[in-house]
Amino acid sequence: MMRILFVGDVMGSHGRQVLSTYLPQLKAKYRPQVTIVNGENAAGGRGITGKIYKQLLQTGADVITMGNHVWDNRDIFEFIQDAKKIVRPANFPEGTTPGQGVVYVQVNQVKLAVINLQGNALMMQNLDNPFLKVDAMLTEIEKVTPFVFIDFHAETTAEKEALGWYLDGRVSAVVGTHTHVQTSDGRILPKGTAYLTDAGMTGAYDAMLGVKPEKSIERFLTQLPTRYEVREDGRDLLGGCLIDLDDQGLAKHIEPVLINDDHPFGLD
Amino acid sequence: MMRILFVGDVMGSHGRQVLSTYLPQLKAKYRPQVTIVNGENAAGGRGITGKIYKQLLQTGADVITMGNHVWDNRDIFEFIQDAKKIVRPANFPEGTTPGQGVVYVQVNQVKLAVINLQGNALMMQNLDNPFLKVDAMLTEIEKVTPFVFIDFHAETTAEKEALGWYLDGRVSAVVGTHTHVQTSDGRILPKGTAYLTDAGMTGAYDAMLGVKPEKSIERFLTQLPTRYEVREDGRDLLGGCLIDLDDQGLAKHIEPVLINDDHPFGLD
Amino acid sequence: MMRILFVGDVMGSHGRQVLSTYLPQLKAKYRPQVTIVNGENAAGGRGITGKIYKQLLQTGADVITMGNHVWDNRDIFEFIQDAKKIVRPANFPEGTTPGQGVVYVQVNQVKLAVINLQGNALMMQNLDNPFLKVDAMLTEIEKVTPFVFIDFHAETTAEKEALGWYLDGRVSAVVGTHTHVQTSDGRILPKGTAYLTDAGMTGAYDAMLGVKPEKSIERFLTQLPTRYEVREDGRDLLGGCLIDLDDQGLAKHIEPVLINDDHPFGLD
Amino acid sequence: MMRILFVGDVMGSHGRQVLSTYLPQLKAKYRPQVTIVNGENAAGGRGITGKIYKQLLQTGADVITMGNHVWDNRDIFEFIQDAKKIVRPANFPEGTTPGQGVVYVQVNQVKLAVINLQGNALMMQNLDNPFLKVDAMLTEIEKVTPFVFIDFHAETTAEKEALGWYLDGRVSAVVGTHTHVQTSDGRILPKGTAYLTDAGMTGAYDAMLGVKPEKSIERFLTQLPTRYEVREDGRDLLGGCLIDLDDQGLAKHIEPVLINDDHPFGLD
Ligand SMILES: [Fe+2]
Ligand SMILES: [Fe+2]
Ligand SMILES: [Fe+2]
Ligand SMILES: [Fe+2]
Ligand SMILES: [Fe+2]
Ligand SMILES: [Fe+2]
Ligand SMILES: [Fe+2]
Ligand SMILES: [Fe+2]
Repeated sequence: MMRILFVGDVMGSHGRQVLSTYLPQLKAKYRPQVTIVNGENAAGGRGITGKIYKQLLQTGADVITMGNHVWDNRDIFEFIQDAKKIVRPANFPEGTTPGQGVVYVQVNQVKLAVINLQGNALMMQNLDNPFLKVDAMLTEIEKVTPFVFIDFHAETTAEKEALGWYLDGRVSAVVGTHTHVQTSDGRILPKGTAYLTDAGMTGAYDAMLGVKPEKSIERFLTQLPTRYEVREDGRDLLGGCLIDLDDQGLAKHIEPVLINDDHPFGLD
Repeated sequence: MMRILFVGDVMGSHGRQVLSTYLPQLKAKYRPQVTIVNGENAAGGRGITGKIYKQLLQTGADVITMGNHVWDNRDIFEFIQDAKKIVRPANFPEGTTPGQGVVYVQVNQVKLAVINLQGNALMMQNLDNPFLKVDAMLTEIEKVTPFVFIDFHAETTAEKEALGWYLDGRVSAVVGTHTHVQTSDGRILPKGTAYLTDAGMTGAYDAMLGVKPEKSIERFLTQLPTRYEVREDGRDLLGGCLIDLDDQGLAKHIEPVLINDDHPFGLD
Repeated sequence: MMRILFVGDVMGSHGRQVLSTYLPQLKAKYRPQVTIVNGENAAGGRGITGKIYKQLLQTGADVITMGNHVWDNRDIFEFIQDAKKIVRPANFPEGTTPGQGVVYVQVNQVKLAVINLQGNALMMQNLDNPFLKVDAMLTEIEKVTPFVFIDFHAETTAEKEALGWYLDGRVSAVVGTHTHVQTSDGRILPKGTAYLTDAGMTGAYDAMLGVKPEKSIERFLTQLPTRYEVREDGRDLLGGCLIDLDDQGLAKHIEPVLINDDHPFGLD
Repeated sequence: MMRILFVGDVMGSHGRQVLSTYLPQLKAKYRPQVTIVNGENAAGGRGITGKIYKQLLQTGADVITMGNHVWDNRDIFEFIQDAKKIVRPANFPEGTTPGQGVVYVQVNQVKLAVINLQGNALMMQNLDNPFLKVDAMLTEIEKVTPFVFIDFHAETTAEKEALGWYLDGRVSAVVGTHTHVQTSDGRILPKGTAYLTDAGMTGAYDAMLGVKPEKSIERFLTQLPTRYEVREDGRDLLGGCLIDLDDQGLAKHIEPVLINDDHPFGLD
């Protein structure tokens, strides 16, 4: 049996503070064997730096997953090639993309493969077909371990659900990120894969997707180029999920983790 | 005080059957004064017909909202102009669009304005700016009533949240539809507007977004033109929300309604 | 009779140099009464500054048109409100957008209205419907003059052609910009409007769309965030067109202007 | 030396009639050794049938190229697997896509490889990266022949130019299709590849992109779902280009072919 804690997109310093506040408490309460954190927005909302990468590990993450913002902070080109605990979307082009799309974590006697994939539907980048890419990857991974967690960073619910159903019974879990809003559809699919369309985000609760509402509203109203600003003050929000796997790597249970003033920690 | 029950996108005959099964039970349990149902997928997943429109009203809906699929079934052009209980996205072009973008429902002594709006971000149609459109509409509606419910049919969480925050304190509720997956972020915004990014859908639970997974997967895998098929058999799913308003039309409470085998009705 | 010279998107300092080299020669050869220049890329490929705006006028432009890059250089917010010879896309939101969407130029005894519009199809910004917007504008403009030139800044040939055919007989000319590649479909539509899908661009010929090929190629190859760089050296390219109007403001003739080493100036 | 005649997207029966009218005359005048015709819209604007495929070959095409509309007419699934003279975009997924992405034509003593590729930028389908795909293909093709013609079916001028510059010196020609409007930028790139952003289309001249203007305008005006209708009557339009290659497979000359009432055949 393996218990995985996943935490959705950590936004800026507020998100990192929320993580350092709640991750110890979540670990104390739920005792996950492995903790995975999406860090694509950890550096001021845009990418990650080597320093923040280490900080997230020290806060308690075992692996950092990324997404479309992976390259926003150019510091990543300095450290990702040698970093062993960070995965970027695996379906960036073969050969020219620094870093890796899968990492293995030792969890007691077994290995957990952690994959990061990015969707193509309504996304700005055009990456390799994630369905075909993960097929090819699984051929190799299956030789190593049946424990496979996928952070699928995608826009549309259609592409996310399709990947979940496609991989049902072949991987342990498909958990979505990117929309920053947690969905309530966590379930075990018929053949044993845990699925959740989006885990949500971690950062400011008095905000929209972690950024100041007024800037984003202004953009929709005026269509002028307004720069988003991460909201660093105010109340806390943490989005994620807990997944329990059996000895074959299939899921027995998935439940959302949601912490904010409307869902205070510890009261469920 | 007013209690509103909203039910998300009803998919095909399965969705209509789920509605007729659960709507009476939901009404018996929660006693809403008004029931609003999104019907953009009611006719085989694509649009609505005059017959189905009447059927949904008989099942217990007081108003039907729509979305980007509003014109998919051409039968709508036959009846929408005279229909008094259906709203299509208000921000379709002025002058050339049949039907209406707001309807008023008498709820005891007060009127509730029900608005349907469509997002522009990552949507196929290019409609009038929904933020500016609703501004103009509210100028008129405020003369009639402070009770205003908005079904915002949009793709991105950014546009949905931005509209919620933009209208905070000016309308009773902004509830999103279109992604067919319910989100867990229902909340009362600081100035009193109830907000939920997506209410989810109503139809088949053993499906992806109401359609057969294999067809949708095939499309992502092959990029060949595969026609989606609504799943008409299998277990039930209903997504929606309940909202309580005070006498000034502001929200006091919002809670999700989610019925499926993982969240059976009546056990909360 | 009125002869109009239009010059497509001037890219950076190379584009401005090409303009100052060839505009006097073009004027000497063709004797246009009015010269219109698209300046959305005049400042290093991204927007325009007050200084460059004045420089383009001194070089011989009577009016500067813009496009989706209009706000890229924030200097524009300093001068556009008072500038009388620059038009930005008219279908930016009413009320919140600085500047104007139409300017009138006195050409001998008559006025020429110069309109800038932006397409919505496959563009990043979501502006007001350009077809409906121009309808409303023409109601006013028709009271002033039948001489109307439109720079339609749009991505798809479908939206550009549709606007041309829609306005056929109601305006003098619809000339497209934005793709930076001149098309060979200049024609007089049946009711007398001159039409050209794209006028092309002005800047470096040894380049792709005015930027260094290697940077752009790298982006398509790697999907990594590569910043485009305007090519400032190398050979010259100028794209534009000449249009002759009759006394009723309808077009009698349109011909492309294309200057590069494969089409040297003066040899046609 | 090899002379290639390429004809852009043939739209419906009008397009086929234009082809049968002018192809014999073009062959008589220019004596191309090989004729390539884009047939993605040959069957009523949407795809192709087995019957029409044969008809196009009888009319004088040696190879038919396709594009995003390749699968619109389901008849193609009946014959493409065995057809030897038709190429569909090569970057559809490996393994699940019927047909082939390259065909070889014997031209006197040498073979010409004809490739069809589709762009990803602003296109509805998400195909394999065309830059990386063509790289892999050329590794094989180079063993067979240095004569390589590519029909690059793409929306944006940026992606088209980038592919042209990327392949400069490695293939004989990169000619774009899809926008249905011919561009005037035909040129030989520095290392010897012939390049043209778009060859234009073949069909009705009194039309927009081959379809009736009123239907397309209505769609932009109303945003209602209007079905395009191919214009089958009226005057003729043919768009294409002629390319001359040297014995090493590099290009010496490219010139546009454009036939319509404003550019009558035979008068250049
Ligand atoms: Fe994110
Ligand atoms: Fe993201
Ligand atoms: Fe829907
Ligand atoms: Fe929808
Ligand atoms: Fe431009
Ligand atoms: Fe532009
Ligand atoms: Fe086509
Ligand atoms: Fe096409």
